[in-house]
Amino acid sequence: MSSASGARRADAVRNRDLALAAAKSLLADPGAPLTVEAIAKRAGLGVGTVARAFGSKDALLDAAIAELLEPLVRRARAVAAAPAATDALRTLLVEVIDFEQRHSAISEQTAGLSLPQTTARERELRDALRQVVETGREAGDIRSDIPAETTAALLTEAVHAVTQARTAPPGLADAMVAVVLDGLRP
Amino acid sequence: MSSASGARRADAVRNRDLALAAAKSLLADPGAPLTVEAIAKRAGLGVGTVARAFGSKDALLDAAIAELLEPLVRRARAVAAAPAATDALRTLLVEVIDFEQRHSAISEQTAGLSLPQTTARERELRDALRQVVETGREAGDIRSDIPAETTAALLTEAVHAVTQARTAPPGLADAMVAVVLDGLRP
Repeated sequence: MSSASGARRADAVRNRDLALAAAKSLLADPGAPLTVEAIAKRAGLGVGTVARAFGSKDALLDAAIAELLEPLVRRARAVAAAPAATDALRTLLVEVIDFEQRHSAISEQTAGLSLPQTTARERELRDALRQVVETGREAGDIRSDIPAETTAALLTEAVHAVTQARTAPPGLADAMVAVVLDGLRP
Repeated sequence: MSSASGARRADAVRNRDLALAAAKSLLADPGAPLTVEAIAKRAGLGVGTVARAFGSKDALLDAAIAELLEPLVRRARAVAAAPAATDALRTLLVEVIDFEQRHSAISEQTAGLSLPQTTARERELRDALRQVVETGREAGDIRSDIPAETTAALLTEAVHAVTQARTAPPGLADAMVAVVLDGLRP
C-alpha cells in the first residue's frame, strides 16, 4: 500500500467516524431533521463525502443507531450473566427507558426503513433480556407461570409504553418498572 | 312541522344512523379504507348524502368512534361503582385490550385529526379508570405508594402496549394484565 492510498484510507475512516458521530448526535436531538445535509453540516463535511462514506442515508442511520444500541446490549448481557439479577434488571429497565426517551427520533424517523444492523442489535437486546428472565426464573426471583419469551416481551413493551405514553403523569416510568417487577415475583 | 318536513327529518336521521353504522363497521375492519366513498358504499347511500349528514369526514369518524367507546365508558363506570373491584378491573382491562385489538384502525387512521367527541369519551374513560383505582385503594386492593393518576395512566399504557406490541408472543395480553394487577397489590 502506497502512503498516498494509506492517507486516503485514513481520511475515509475519519470521515466515516465524523459522519457517524454527527448522526448519533442528531438522533438524540428530537427537533433535528435527519437529512444527509444536516448530518454533513454537523460533521463539518461535504454532502458528497458523507454520501460516499455510507452509500445511502439508510446505511448511515443504520450504523449510527446500531452503535447507539451497543452499550445497552452489553449492559443487558452483563445483567444476564449476574447471579442475582432483579436489582440489576431494574437498573437496566430504567436505562432502556432513558435511552428511548432521549432517542425518540429513532422510532419516529426510521419507521419503514430497512436497517439490518439495527435489527440485529435489537434482536441481541431481546435475546439478552430473555436470558435475564431465564436467569431470574432459575434463581426463583421471577415467576415461572408465564413463558420466558412472553415475560421478556412484556418487559420490552411495558418499557416502550412509557416512552410512547399519550399522557405521562409524574413518576410514570419508575412506577411502571416497580409495578411490573413486583408483578413478576413468583 | 308539515308531514313532508317530518319525512325529510326521519330520512336524515335514518341516513345518519346508516352512515354511522357503516363507519363503525369499517373501523373494525383493519384493511378497509376509511374514505367517505367507502362509508357511503357500505351504508348503501350516496356520497353526497353521507357528506351532508355529517358535514365532514372527521365529524363522521368522531361520532362513530365516540359511539364505539360508549359501552367501554359505561363498563368502566360500573366497575368504579362496585365495592370490590379487582376482578372487575381485570375483566375491564381485558375488554379494553380486546377493543383496541379489534379497532386498530382507529389509532392508525385518526392520528392528527381533531375529534372532540372522541376526546371527551376518552377523557371519561380515563376518569372512570382513575375512579376504579381510587375505589381499589380505599378497599385496600391497590397499592397507595403510587399516585392514583399515575396508576391509572400505567394501566392505560400497559394495556395499550399490548395492542401496539412489535413482537406479540402467545398470551402477552393476559400476562400483562396479570403482572400489572399483581404488581399493583399493596
